[in-house]
Amino acid sequence: MRVLVLGGDGFCGWPTALYLSQRGHQVAMLDNLSRRRWDEELGTASLTPIRSPEERVAAWQALTGQRIELIIGDLNDYDVVSAAFERLQPETIIHYAEQRSAPYSMIDRAHAVFTQVNNVVGTLNVLYAMRDLAPDAQLVKLGTMGEYGTPNIAIEEGYIEIEHEGRKDTLPYPKQPGSMYHLTKVHDSHNILFACRAWGLCATDLNQGVVYNVATDETERDEALANRFDYDEVFGTALNRFCAEVAAGHPITVYGAGGQTRGFLDLRDTVRCIELAATHPAAAGEMRVFNQFTEQFSVLELAERVQRVAQEMGLSAEITHLTNPRVEKEQHYYLAKHTRLLDLGLQPHLLTDATIAALLERAMRHRDRIELSHILPTVTWR
Amino acid sequence: MRVLVLGGDGFCGWPTALYLSQRGHQVAMLDNLSRRRWDEELGTASLTPIRSPEERVAAWQALTGQRIELIIGDLNDYDVVSAAFERLQPETIIHYAEQRSAPYSMIDRAHAVFTQVNNVVGTLNVLYAMRDLAPDAQLVKLGTMGEYGTPNIAIEEGYIEIEHEGRKDTLPYPKQPGSMYHLTKVHDSHNILFACRAWGLCATDLNQGVVYNVATDETERDEALANRFDYDEVFGTALNRFCAEVAAGHPITVYGAGGQTRGFLDLRDTVRCIELAATHPAAAGEMRVFNQFTEQFSVLELAERVQRVAQEMGLSAEITHLTNPRVEKEQHYYLAKHTRLLDLGLQPHLLTDATIAALLERAMRHRDRIELSHILPTVTWR
Repeated sequence: MRVLVLGGDGFCGWPTALYLSQRGHQVAMLDNLSRRRWDEELGTASLTPIRSPEERVAAWQALTGQRIELIIGDLNDYDVVSAAFERLQPETIIHYAEQRSAPYSMIDRAHAVFTQVNNVVGTLNVLYAMRDLAPDAQLVKLGTMGEYGTPNIAIEEGYIEIEHEGRKDTLPYPKQPGSMYHLTKVHDSHNILFACRAWGLCATDLNQGVVYNVATDETERDEALANRFDYDEVFGTALNRFCAEVAAGHPITVYGAGGQTRGFLDLRDTVRCIELAATHPAAAGEMRVFNQFTEQFSVLELAERVQRVAQEMGLSAEITHLTNPRVEKEQHYYLAKHTRLLDLGLQPHLLTDATIAALLERAMRHRDRIELSHILPTVTWR
Repeated sequence: MRVLVLGGDGFCGWPTALYLSQRGHQVAMLDNLSRRRWDEELGTASLTPIRSPEERVAAWQALTGQRIELIIGDLNDYDVVSAAFERLQPETIIHYAEQRSAPYSMIDRAHAVFTQVNNVVGTLNVLYAMRDLAPDAQLVKLGTMGEYGTPNIAIEEGYIEIEHEGRKDTLPYPKQPGSMYHLTKVHDSHNILFACRAWGLCATDLNQGVVYNVATDETERDEALANRFDYDEVFGTALNRFCAEVAAGHPITVYGAGGQTRGFLDLRDTVRCIELAATHPAAAGEMRVFNQFTEQFSVLELAERVQRVAQEMGLSAEITHLTNPRVEKEQHYYLAKHTRLLDLGLQPHLLTDATIAALLERAMRHRDRIELSHILPTVTWR
């Protein structure tokens, strides 16, 4: 399969490019390196040292003989997109290339506008390139479970049958996203659904949960292939950030009561879910939606889990409840369906103490790189 | 009430500014004159001659003594928005300032991207200006009934109670917009809902139907106050365009079977609905949604209605069914609720033969200005 991974230099994109290459697919990646620029802007850095994209693909080729073509370019520039589509004739487009941090989008008006324009226009450009240059290709697009918010009814996978006043229809599941970033994924989903209906495109919208872990079999093969490990308030997410906090001797920071419940998955399942979606395409004209996560946890449960494993390793780990910088319910009903990827054959890596211990050890190895001033939340929603 | 009408030079914005001024409100309007530029771009023009915005407000002041302040500026430029908010301290912001044509948004990729960025960023700028400079003001924002698409269940006003697996919640009504333009209104609605929830802003999202008629009591007081009358394929809408077609001796153009059913309202009700929403504000933190139309018709019903009135006036009027340039259902269930504005006191101008006759007469007076080549659809959805 000829695969184009958009955003292939990022936290999920890079392991995905490696995994698909290892599985024998012909992989090219396109990235504008914006994730590295946002680090420069914020003064942050990955906990683990990461190599340049050129070194990364060279190391992979040296190790495996497999070439991953690297294109440095911006999805918001249609000339870049159309040139890549024309030359590569991708059969599958995996689209990670968006600004993916809720706090980053909430820094101020300019960051909100940037995030919305960057994400929405990038995806529009992909849709038009598919329509005009690769109408039979399939799009595998990363959305987020955060599109749904926390409704008081079960969350279905993308669509819900509604019975109302004696009539029935199956309609897009109502969305209640909780940040300027999450909103962009909702906008994308509506744009993609329209493009599928109007132009007969084929797409899978993957509403991904919070990803934990940083390593896959491929990223572990050489330190030049190492994946990024974000722990800062802007790009760090729950479980990974907690492990870095423990390693740094910082309390585990739970926002508010910690009853916020979300879907989570191991990065090793992310790459497998992508392959499952790509090798079982949606029908022409269909925007299929999968909820891509394997277990749901409350934030406090995860904090306590990390605390326990840390203590078993002889590390001290205190939990602190911070004033919640976000506007979100801290106690709520949450039940999200996630059977469709299991039906395609996903065998989940459920969260184990061993995974947490490995993350803690990794963070301990690089603890001198942790900048404590980047941990506490300064970006607030209000 | 200090009112800022964004998009006050447009088809609905101008009559609204006049109406609110006549009702004693202190009105300022902000417009970047883009509607006039799109005419230049497309080589089109209003069927009725319209004056420059400066002449319009001068004529209104000469006639009534009421001053409408005119600000020429672009909502996408935050400096313009913040300066206007700081100086005017608006209590109510009426927001029409978007690219509002579905065909314009479907011309090509560049027009789709322009429409989405223009509309979404303009509205984001308004929301941030409200948050930072006018947190107690209320937003009255124009959406469209087209956000809902044509579901097989009744369309509620913005939200729907869903019972699912023994639990209940009231959630945003699922949206299925049918063009790159309609999508922008859905994006706006999600952004506004978030801003209300996160920042406690107060907003009314008016999902307006297709507006017919071009005249209000105010626009009729002097020819310098005349409103625009669009009949071209890009900006002309069903009933008004049909009247212009008859005046030009052109067949009435129905797209496809004509069973497409939509909500419609008289422009005189548009301006009244805005005042009703503005004088009965939503609560802080609430995004209230009203479906702003008074009757629903199929496109073919309207064509036949115009045909009959035209024939009674001695005009020949033939109906032609064109291949539908859009992707939409041509026969479908449609029942949309619209009681909330009635509950506030709206007394609808239902569609009368007299209104159609007046439109036909107006079009006949200016028939020499009709450019036949702009009538048939050239922009297609596929």
